[in-house]
Amino acid sequence: MKIALAQINQTVGDFQKNVEKICLFINRARDQNVNLIVFPELAVTGYPPKDFLDNPSFVDGNLKALEKIASSVSGISAIVGFVDKNKRPQGKLVHNAAAFIQDKKIVSVSHKSLLPTYDVFDECRYFEPAHAISTVKFMGYTLGISICEDIWNDEEFWMRPLYEKDPIEDLISKGADVIINISSSPFAVGKHDKIRLRMLIHDAIKYKVPFVYVNQVGGNDDLVFDGNSTVINSEGKLIAQAAAFEEDLMVVDIENPTIQAQPKAHTHIESVHKALIMGLRDYVTKCCFKKVIVGLSGGIDSAVTAALAVESLGRDNVIGILMPSQFSSRGSIDDAVKLAQNVGITYKVIPIKDIFETYQHTLKQEFKGRPFDIAEENLQARIRGNILMALSNKYGYLVLTTGNKSELAVGYCTLYGDMSGGLALISDVPKTMVYELARYINREGEIIPQNSIDKPPSAELKPNQFDQDILPPYDILDGILKAYVEDAKSISEIISMGFDEKIVREIIKKVNRNEYKRRQAAPGIKVTSKAFGSGRRMPIAHNYMC
Amino acid sequence: MKIALAQINQTVGDFQKNVEKICLFINRARDQNVNLIVFPELAVTGYPPKDFLDNPSFVDGNLKALEKIASSVSGISAIVGFVDKNKRPQGKLVHNAAAFIQDKKIVSVSHKSLLPTYDVFDECRYFEPAHAISTVKFMGYTLGISICEDIWNDEEFWMRPLYEKDPIEDLISKGADVIINISSSPFAVGKHDKIRLRMLIHDAIKYKVPFVYVNQVGGNDDLVFDGNSTVINSEGKLIAQAAAFEEDLMVVDIENPTIQAQPKAHTHIESVHKALIMGLRDYVTKCCFKKVIVGLSGGIDSAVTAALAVESLGRDNVIGILMPSQFSSRGSIDDAVKLAQNVGITYKVIPIKDIFETYQHTLKQEFKGRPFDIAEENLQARIRGNILMALSNKYGYLVLTTGNKSELAVGYCTLYGDMSGGLALISDVPKTMVYELARYINREGEIIPQNSIDKPPSAELKPNQFDQDILPPYDILDGILKAYVEDAKSISEIISMGFDEKIVREIIKKVNRNEYKRRQAAPGIKVTSKAFGSGRRMPIAHNYMC
Repeated sequence: MKIALAQINQTVGDFQKNVEKICLFINRARDQNVNLIVFPELAVTGYPPKDFLDNPSFVDGNLKALEKIASSVSGISAIVGFVDKNKRPQGKLVHNAAAFIQDKKIVSVSHKSLLPTYDVFDECRYFEPAHAISTVKFMGYTLGISICEDIWNDEEFWMRPLYEKDPIEDLISKGADVIINISSSPFAVGKHDKIRLRMLIHDAIKYKVPFVYVNQVGGNDDLVFDGNSTVINSEGKLIAQAAAFEEDLMVVDIENPTIQAQPKAHTHIESVHKALIMGLRDYVTKCCFKKVIVGLSGGIDSAVTAALAVESLGRDNVIGILMPSQFSSRGSIDDAVKLAQNVGITYKVIPIKDIFETYQHTLKQEFKGRPFDIAEENLQARIRGNILMALSNKYGYLVLTTGNKSELAVGYCTLYGDMSGGLALISDVPKTMVYELARYINREGEIIPQNSIDKPPSAELKPNQFDQDILPPYDILDGILKAYVEDAKSISEIISMGFDEKIVREIIKKVNRNEYKRRQAAPGIKVTSKAFGSGRRMPIAHNYMC
Repeated sequence: MKIALAQINQTVGDFQKNVEKICLFINRARDQNVNLIVFPELAVTGYPPKDFLDNPSFVDGNLKALEKIASSVSGISAIVGFVDKNKRPQGKLVHNAAAFIQDKKIVSVSHKSLLPTYDVFDECRYFEPAHAISTVKFMGYTLGISICEDIWNDEEFWMRPLYEKDPIEDLISKGADVIINISSSPFAVGKHDKIRLRMLIHDAIKYKVPFVYVNQVGGNDDLVFDGNSTVINSEGKLIAQAAAFEEDLMVVDIENPTIQAQPKAHTHIESVHKALIMGLRDYVTKCCFKKVIVGLSGGIDSAVTAALAVESLGRDNVIGILMPSQFSSRGSIDDAVKLAQNVGITYKVIPIKDIFETYQHTLKQEFKGRPFDIAEENLQARIRGNILMALSNKYGYLVLTTGNKSELAVGYCTLYGDMSGGLALISDVPKTMVYELARYINREGEIIPQNSIDKPPSAELKPNQFDQDILPPYDILDGILKAYVEDAKSISEIISMGFDEKIVREIIKKVNRNEYKRRQAAPGIKVTSKAFGSGRRMPIAHNYMC
């Protein structure tokens, strides 16, 4: 039995193009004499369709699209993820489903049993779980068809399973001798090698059956799907792995599997780099933009953002804007110009001094007798935000914001200022990882100006201002933030890791107090195990101080 | 048996104050010889605690608070909503629970069975459902203790029940002769009288037992809880109803219930009015602000927002800012001044002309040869946003944005401009309802200037600009938006309601295309059955056009 793993990049709700892509991959697989082609979870709708699922005409559109796909399936069989209607008189209206298609007919449908409802996942919001599980006979095999989370509940692999049932155990007990899993499993750094692969290998060894794992690829809003579709044989050997962060059609003969050459494993920083580039490209494309505009401060964050944008979209599609003020050092301007020259983008210089002075003049009466403070600092950031948005409005550019995760965590950023824009590319990248990215980008020569890497970080919104005037050094800050935000550790646990109590309390207070800024932040690309945004839902009005 | 319904307003995570409030109400009830006092769902933590529930030290803090409460319960019994730990080796870590406390001891704990996971609710994200249901014996009664959603699944009352189980049926079959329900059920216009009350009456008649329904009151972020706690006797008669939108301690003798005087029923517009005032007050207070600042344009939206703010916070805590440009009509300035005088607030005039001209001068090179367009229009709105934020930063005011739901739906608003602020007070109020509110506010005399109500709405960002240049009349727009956003109707269904096809398609396209703006909007107060924000989760990057 030759199986093709169709690792495709779909657009949510674009039924016409999604069907075309699926049919194209079916034709390509048929040309290679494939018996069964397998597409990812919700391949028909794109994942995640979110509240479009509450819209009955969206569900109907997806069913029509599935019919169209079915009519093109001959000389090959196919497993396709789609949204099925729940035919029972109670419960949620739809199932997350996999159609098994043969000879132009949908011969069986499998429903997802385990519905992830944590972090970025909301599947209990939409889907009714499977009420029955059954296997599918095909070419002498008994296929156990499962959907994403269904393979993520092995009681031996996990310290604490999230669900009572284990659909894989159930499929095996019903005679499944090949487990097929269709997924839309988002990227987080280390997730594929440290968790997914280990889990698939563990399960294959446990049940002595091959696992065929087909994952979506591509970016959808804040989520990036890394692909990395995988076949594990019944001895737990990795037989084949598809590309990371690219579409792929990988064919494996289940009877005579030869261990295929593996794509080179990515280091963590390589995978973050690829994730950001793909996430940006897909966000820009799927939102129908072409060009992006970035404010260049001379600092490392905007330099890394612009360099990533150039790798993602090409130098002709990235515009850099320098907006110096009276507080900008000569060095900063030089660093920004150097970055623009290194990556070869058009850049323009638009000083903000006149506008800033006019604001101060207009507000003279209101500000009289008050010292220069956060109001004036934020004004400068907001003027820059306005200029970028004005150019966006005039020319149809997408504004990229340049803030990192550490700043966003503690609120060291200006709402409607440097937070203005359509995508916050590195807003899930902690500052220490921004440095790693910069060094990685410079691996074959200077792209990020060395001075942007070496100099002490500064917002340059008043004379002699440095980040570390009010924040602890970034390695300490990021250590505390990872413990609190990603690992949900308590204050006492974090202190017992060796951090200073006063600093820990201050930082956590800042994190909790600045939810209001994050609520109005642009979406960012999730690369860590816990990003701000859709996966972290905190109240704004509260009085919890740990 | 004398029961007290303790309808209280808690703050999320403020364990100390929440415990104090609960103990205070226990003492007040004891003074009235009450046998059993009942508090709302999650009274210990406040509702909704959201992802604080993923934080083990938050859960521990809540358990310690419950112990403190228990130690004060003597001479009376109490039912208190709290977060319980799940003691099983799998599943979510916590239960949504009710403690039954007697003689300083927690004698039994009931877990919530049905976990709402739709609209603004995310309970499957956090909670493990009840694994067993049992009743509690008290003073010769068999109490059936249920939590919020547990009463919302009667198969006769609902066309399509959401869940397979009905915990009330289960409690009755176990002998319950009084059903107690502790809730945190958010307000939406018409929900209490049209759904909740009808449902409670239906169930009481069906099972021939009294229902004691205790609802939280108060605002938490976007949600407002209306209270309206209710006792229905075993014949389905409404015996007593607590205040709407206020804390209350209502005592009812279950043996000898006398039908208490009902609070005057609110019209829909009265209830929206009250909800907005309470929602604003609680948001401001719970976020530790005192004063708010509002940009006054002379239009109806900012006038209604300012008038509501004055009713909510007092005239001394509201500041109005007029920011006229060269496109502002004399009439608009007069209307804004009149509003400020009518409500008696301090107002200031800060013209934006100089700043706008300086921006245009600074961007002259970039804008050369291009017509005046949305870029210049948005700039004006952003200058105004910056001025309000500068005053907010300088003086610690909370900025209220003034946009309505109709604008937000179609993107007729400026990101980082009129959308700048901490709370979007009327962002779930459709424009037609803004007019209703204005007339209601003027019920005893002019507060909202009649001219602001009568004149054709205009953004005044260019000469002779009117909303209806690019939008259909608001009654038509709001009809289409209600059908699409609130009722999830398809295009063809909306057309068959009598709306013009071209307009319907244009409007829905605008709604779908402007998700990116709403993603960065300030939270608003939910008053309709479907608000933008946490209850409506749409992808930004998609290509679904119905």
